[in-house]
Amino acid sequence: MEQANDPDRTQPDRIWTAALIVIGDEILSGRTQDKNIAQLASWLNVQGIRLAEARVVADRTQAIVEAVNTLRARNDYLFTTGGIGPTHDDITVDAIAEALGVAVEHHPEALAVLERYYATRGGLTEARARMARVPAGAGLIVNTVSGAPGIRIGNVFIMAGVPHITAGMLDGLTGTLEGGRPVVSGTIGCWVGESEVADLLRTTEKVHEGVSIGSYPFFRDGRTGANFVVRSPDAALVDACLADLTRELEAGGREVVPEGI
Amino acid sequence: MEQANDPDRTQPDRIWTAALIVIGDEILSGRTQDKNIAQLASWLNVQGIRLAEARVVADRTQAIVEAVNTLRARNDYLFTTGGIGPTHDDITVDAIAEALGVAVEHHPEALAVLERYYATRGGLTEARARMARVPAGAGLIVNTVSGAPGIRIGNVFIMAGVPHITAGMLDGLTGTLEGGRPVVSGTIGCWVGESEVADLLRTTEKVHEGVSIGSYPFFRDGRTGANFVVRSPDAALVDACLADLTRELEAGGREVVPEGI
Repeated sequence: MEQANDPDRTQPDRIWTAALIVIGDEILSGRTQDKNIAQLASWLNVQGIRLAEARVVADRTQAIVEAVNTLRARNDYLFTTGGIGPTHDDITVDAIAEALGVAVEHHPEALAVLERYYATRGGLTEARARMARVPAGAGLIVNTVSGAPGIRIGNVFIMAGVPHITAGMLDGLTGTLEGGRPVVSGTIGCWVGESEVADLLRTTEKVHEGVSIGSYPFFRDGRTGANFVVRSPDAALVDACLADLTRELEAGGREVVPEGI
Repeated sequence: MEQANDPDRTQPDRIWTAALIVIGDEILSGRTQDKNIAQLASWLNVQGIRLAEARVVADRTQAIVEAVNTLRARNDYLFTTGGIGPTHDDITVDAIAEALGVAVEHHPEALAVLERYYATRGGLTEARARMARVPAGAGLIVNTVSGAPGIRIGNVFIMAGVPHITAGMLDGLTGTLEGGRPVVSGTIGCWVGESEVADLLRTTEKVHEGVSIGSYPFFRDGRTGANFVVRSPDAALVDACLADLTRELEAGGREVVPEGI
């Protein structure tokens, strides 16, 4: 695959998309606060890939199969986090194999990795060897943090649920996926109720084709404010739009905080 | 509707489910860490309703329509968060009206609420009045924190994106939704690699029908540990399963930490 940002890419304006499936009852029960959506989203931005949708599904085979087949078909890449450990509730590999219509097998290289990792940690038991199971035909994603590697099959990337292990896997994937131009964003803040500038935002977005403006209100120290985030793959468009928005807000007598509040 | 936990309920073992759609480019861009999935999940548990699935979708009408129609059909309740403010990127109400095949109208009571709220805040402008727009036939959800109310239409509950405003709306809904028996959970912790006890967990879950055991590993202070969470609507089953698991772990020479690590 080409590197992201390859100037010779034939479709420079193509938008590359990814989806994420967060797998785990612990997220849906409220026990664990998901961190992988934000983590993957930020990483994808740098690769020039847009996170188009994310789903959180339970540890149930049919829920995983349905989400995998819907999302891998309509996105360039599909990532999953969670459910690849050694215990009975780790069903991700089996469910994804079922979705893809392939068998599950032990990956020899993954077995070797686990043997080395557990050599000084009590040895490779049958339960631990479960973590070398992959959908037939899969490759591995390096795990720099703990033992069990992630798994790649086709456009599906199967990663750990523990965020810092996922982070290590993403580090290993950096620069290996084809993407488009990274989306650039710029932010300004203003102590203003967003309803007071709603028309201005709408008009400004329309005038600057190719940018989107997000408005994110907050209440702090008893005051109402908002940050306005301008996004586009074209940095010059972002700058021009931000400058325009700042000028208009200041013309309306409002103080603008560069970089946001 | 009946209150949750009504002893006369005719289907005491029925499982009530809800889905959540988190609407917003700010989550998918990684700019904002979602907090509403965990917040809603915890609140639903207390109502005896299970969060069965969650999706994060972009500020695009078709993405919202698709998710709304899929999820409201297969769950008792559907909640949405985000996209109900006064600005151009707030398209939730229009998209949900489209999904339901109804028009959008200004809700008289919502207009009155906003008029009162903005009386001392510069008055009700056209942009602010946008927040009184609802799918035709909808009722309101009280907003105890800021001005604009949430919206209820059929089994769809439309709430704010800002977590503390959402929290206020959920407070107002507490006890008003029919649910089943709340799921009870209990946790024990153990300084053990989960792969070492995978077989024990699997066997224990099988023996105790009606419970699920989740295994949540972590690495802390250079040591490997895991928390085991037992869940069931039947508190006696949870206690019996936890006692059994504790006994077996201790019989294996492992120290168990009640309430988890």
